[in-house]
Amino acid sequence: MSALYERIETSFKRQGMMQALGCELVSVDKGRVEFALPMSEKVTQQQGAFHGGALGALADISCGYAALTVAPEGMEVTSVEYKINFAAAASGERVHCVGEVKRAGRTLAVCQAELFDVKDGERKSCGFMQATMIYIEKKY
Amino acid sequence: MSALYERIETSFKRQGMMQALGCELVSVDKGRVEFALPMSEKVTQQQGAFHGGALGALADISCGYAALTVAPEGMEVTSVEYKINFAAAASGERVHCVGEVKRAGRTLAVCQAELFDVKDGERKSCGFMQATMIYIEKKY
Amino acid sequence: MSALYERIETSFKRQGMMQALGCELVSVDKGRVEFALPMSEKVTQQQGAFHGGALGALADISCGYAALTVAPEGMEVTSVEYKINFAAAASGERVHCVGEVKRAGRTLAVCQAELFDVKDGERKSCGFMQATMIYIEKKY
Amino acid sequence: MSALYERIETSFKRQGMMQALGCELVSVDKGRVEFALPMSEKVTQQQGAFHGGALGALADISCGYAALTVAPEGMEVTSVEYKINFAAAASGERVHCVGEVKRAGRTLAVCQAELFDVKDGERKSCGFMQATMIYIEKKY
Repeated sequence: MSALYERIETSFKRQGMMQALGCELVSVDKGRVEFALPMSEKVTQQQGAFHGGALGALADISCGYAALTVAPEGMEVTSVEYKINFAAAASGERVHCVGEVKRAGRTLAVCQAELFDVKDGERKSCGFMQATMIYIEKKY
Repeated sequence: MSALYERIETSFKRQGMMQALGCELVSVDKGRVEFALPMSEKVTQQQGAFHGGALGALADISCGYAALTVAPEGMEVTSVEYKINFAAAASGERVHCVGEVKRAGRTLAVCQAELFDVKDGERKSCGFMQATMIYIEKKY
Repeated sequence: MSALYERIETSFKRQGMMQALGCELVSVDKGRVEFALPMSEKVTQQQGAFHGGALGALADISCGYAALTVAPEGMEVTSVEYKINFAAAASGERVHCVGEVKRAGRTLAVCQAELFDVKDGERKSCGFMQATMIYIEKKY
Repeated sequence: MSALYERIETSFKRQGMMQALGCELVSVDKGRVEFALPMSEKVTQQQGAFHGGALGALADISCGYAALTVAPEGMEVTSVEYKINFAAAASGERVHCVGEVKRAGRTLAVCQAELFDVKDGERKSCGFMQATMIYIEKKY
């Protein structure tokens, strides 16, 4: 397990919400992370599909942790803002999300994420996020 | 309890995610709804504050249900996209969110929501959402 | 003419694009500015209405200059990102735009703007922006 | 010259604003278009760089015309909303923008665009757009 993976996992495991929703860290590379969220009644909207708020939260951390992979030591990342477009309803067994850094400056990072609905082993694009992250001093 | 309130509550109670997070419906008016989310370990990020994904989900339903209050009978609302700006960390006892319809057309509605961190009884603005909702046929 | 008005006007008059499009400064208050853009063939799209790009540019400067009204001396403002929703086609004699600061921090400001289509003296809301501005050192 | 290119060019040439700013159509493929905007005093902000509003307008049409390349005959495209992140100041000889359709449904299309500052022959990414387009009946 790489130091980079550990850095992301350590922060991720502290996120009560992501633990409560059952979110899983899939992979970590410099500038790119992947998370997965299994279907459960904790992530549904009124029609039984994945809740847009769950997909937004998943894409938010995908962008944020992608930014953290390129952050200076001792720095944390927090979301300035994010914007998500839903391209299709997601109702498969799980949703995967790949977050990528598009450009990291000293203060801010622009990130994008793509969401994939995974159903019967097939992976279909179902949403897109574009977000701004800011580097702040780590306080814990 | 008004018919409008019941319409919103019926749909809201079907949202597994919102029940799991402990979200509460506060009030319903034509074009305006308010929700609250109490602090708990189910909604935190790595520093113990409210998770941006939880605030996004809360603002998403505030926009969506505001749009539903002005939807034709038999129609449901789903999110086309939403964008949220965080103005301050939220770490109070609860976060309230007021969603409002800014303009509703036949197909789409533009909505805005404002988030308030409630700490020791004081209510401080902590975030802003602008979102697009679409009216679709109700299938359940 | 107030010092605040002068500060905004001085910067605004240096914007070649806004001069080319015929944009006008209407009013300046702390945290709030208003601009107007008269209809002309320099601002139209393919159907003869105001171009979405012109409305976006107008709302961008409305947000940016609203942020500048509350900026420390010697600082300039630049756009981190902006997001605009179109609520109705704008095809009147002019479009007005009111930009407001929703929250200004040390580094970033969250702003919102509303666009109004002015036709036969009637003012109709036609779009909404939510934007993030950043304070940078003035270099000219 | 392909029928697809002609379809885009015909609409583009009707955009008064794009003609006024000096915008050029570079290439057209199914789901992907490229435009260029040469530096001139008609597109600058107060520091002499490309105006964020010009870049937003350029990315808006890049997304819109990418959506038009996959639109049913007789349909036009209009912007529901767009969101742009600026990654670096653009001050080169020209800015190019590539717009792509990420997912097109019957009513809406999700598009992304990337902006490139071209300076001394070098092409550097300087901005990102994510947008929602809607298909409407062509009226002219």
